[in-house]
Amino acid sequence: MTGLAKGVWAAALTPLDAALSPDIPALAKHCRWLLAGGCDGLAVLGTTGEANSFSLSERLAILDGLFQAGIPGANLLPGTGCAAFPDTVALSKKAVELGALGVLVLPPFYYKNVSDEGLFASYARVIEGVGDSRLRLYLYHFPKMSGVAISPSLIERLIKAYPGTIAGLKDSAGDLEHTLSLVRNFPDLSILAGYDDGLLPLLEAGGGGCITACANIASPYAQAVVRALPDVKAAQLAQMRLTQIRRTMEGYPMIAAMKELLARRGGDDGWRRLRPPLTPLGEEKGGDLAAQLASIGFDLRPIS
Amino acid sequence: MTGLAKGVWAAALTPLDAALSPDIPALAKHCRWLLAGGCDGLAVLGTTGEANSFSLSERLAILDGLFQAGIPGANLLPGTGCAAFPDTVALSKKAVELGALGVLVLPPFYYKNVSDEGLFASYARVIEGVGDSRLRLYLYHFPKMSGVAISPSLIERLIKAYPGTIAGLKDSAGDLEHTLSLVRNFPDLSILAGYDDGLLPLLEAGGGGCITACANIASPYAQAVVRALPDVKAAQLAQMRLTQIRRTMEGYPMIAAMKELLARRGGDDGWRRLRPPLTPLGEEKGGDLAAQLASIGFDLRPIS
Repeated sequence: MTGLAKGVWAAALTPLDAALSPDIPALAKHCRWLLAGGCDGLAVLGTTGEANSFSLSERLAILDGLFQAGIPGANLLPGTGCAAFPDTVALSKKAVELGALGVLVLPPFYYKNVSDEGLFASYARVIEGVGDSRLRLYLYHFPKMSGVAISPSLIERLIKAYPGTIAGLKDSAGDLEHTLSLVRNFPDLSILAGYDDGLLPLLEAGGGGCITACANIASPYAQAVVRALPDVKAAQLAQMRLTQIRRTMEGYPMIAAMKELLARRGGDDGWRRLRPPLTPLGEEKGGDLAAQLASIGFDLRPIS
Repeated sequence: MTGLAKGVWAAALTPLDAALSPDIPALAKHCRWLLAGGCDGLAVLGTTGEANSFSLSERLAILDGLFQAGIPGANLLPGTGCAAFPDTVALSKKAVELGALGVLVLPPFYYKNVSDEGLFASYARVIEGVGDSRLRLYLYHFPKMSGVAISPSLIERLIKAYPGTIAGLKDSAGDLEHTLSLVRNFPDLSILAGYDDGLLPLLEAGGGGCITACANIASPYAQAVVRALPDVKAAQLAQMRLTQIRRTMEGYPMIAAMKELLARRGGDDGWRRLRPPLTPLGEEKGGDLAAQLASIGFDLRPIS
């Protein structure tokens, strides 16, 4: 594996079949559509991809299926962080074997108020369990969801112990100042925002880019920010447009809302399925969302 | 399966071998010791048992191992709740097949702020996925750890949809008023406290009993409360004693502290191992804890 994950990455949604099992051909199709339409890469099997609602064997099958469908490993950053480190090892090992650019690894998320010592030991078990110099690990800081934060001192300790392996971090805490401080303090890592609205200031500060749910439907708007640079004025206009879409989406449960939009875009009801405990957005809210997006001139079919 | 889980249940610790894998013979020995010494039953593979730090296959092996070691199913209430419902189904099915009295089921705990609709759908998938009339399911309310609460309206809806299957609830929120309101509102369920200090008022109100970490070392003290009744004065004295132990333990990370005490009790260093992200208590804190317990006259070897 070479190179760092940079630019616009989609936290890819996972389509489901009628039995609520992963619909791997539909996922591969979605991945191809995303890569063709403005995404630099795909963070499959993340929070948005409902990964933690799938069993280990389902997740392994998804990885195998994507590679068999010809999705290039260089464009993949699969989420592999589980509550139990043996599962994280198994998924990360599979991703490395299949040539993924890296893996995005949540801390173990069942126990709360755990020590940095314990989190370090957990990541160490994963890295040593994979035991492959090709491993590139991206830390995943999303305390509101996982309940477990990745502190700067933990990052520092991991970089020291595993230089070259720790490749980046996705910051989904939504606090731009925090994300920018990571860029300053860890210049060798690719720092990616898990939110769209901070993309431009992050890029200007030397950050890697973003990995977002919105990119499932609005990646051209994020890519417009990247491509406008170094023309800051044009980039600001593009960022305003992207932020406007993000703000609209934030009025709805993000994963259900994104799936609803994909269902409406392609006329495919299958996209409306979510795995419990998540639930579909529903007809009424879906109509409201579509109307709100239309009112700000958002084209549901930006990619033909 | 017949009967409800009542009385004093230990949230059994899981001993680990040098590779940090479950030491099943040592666990079976611990289970036998607990049953011989004051526990009515064993909630293995719960929060205290570090279950969510084990893979599905490790957990299945633990269940198989305990039954092969002759631990009676009637005394077992294994934790089976995972983030992904297929794993919860697999574990619950195994527990039913092996004759466990019931299963203790966390809600899916990765996603936060999920709807009762989504949680109902998740439990429904589990119950229908197991598809066995012998299933007795105990709900597990531990919002501080899981991040996901079990609301009274969810309980009501589940009881209506699956009468006979929903058998009880473990309330680890630590709020006695809340636990007592569950006893009043759901008289057919066995309501068990996940904390020792409310045992007596819970029993007086008709609650089922407790499932606690402390019972790994102090079950005779909890059993003394149960056995003193209907002599309320004697029960109060026993409860004061139990509460004193609990309060002392609460100054330390509970799981690490309990393992440290078992190591000291039997001179077995193996008990000091925890799976990341949890970490051992350490020599110094272990000494402090032992001294504090000694100062309140707590006998580290209440069961010979």
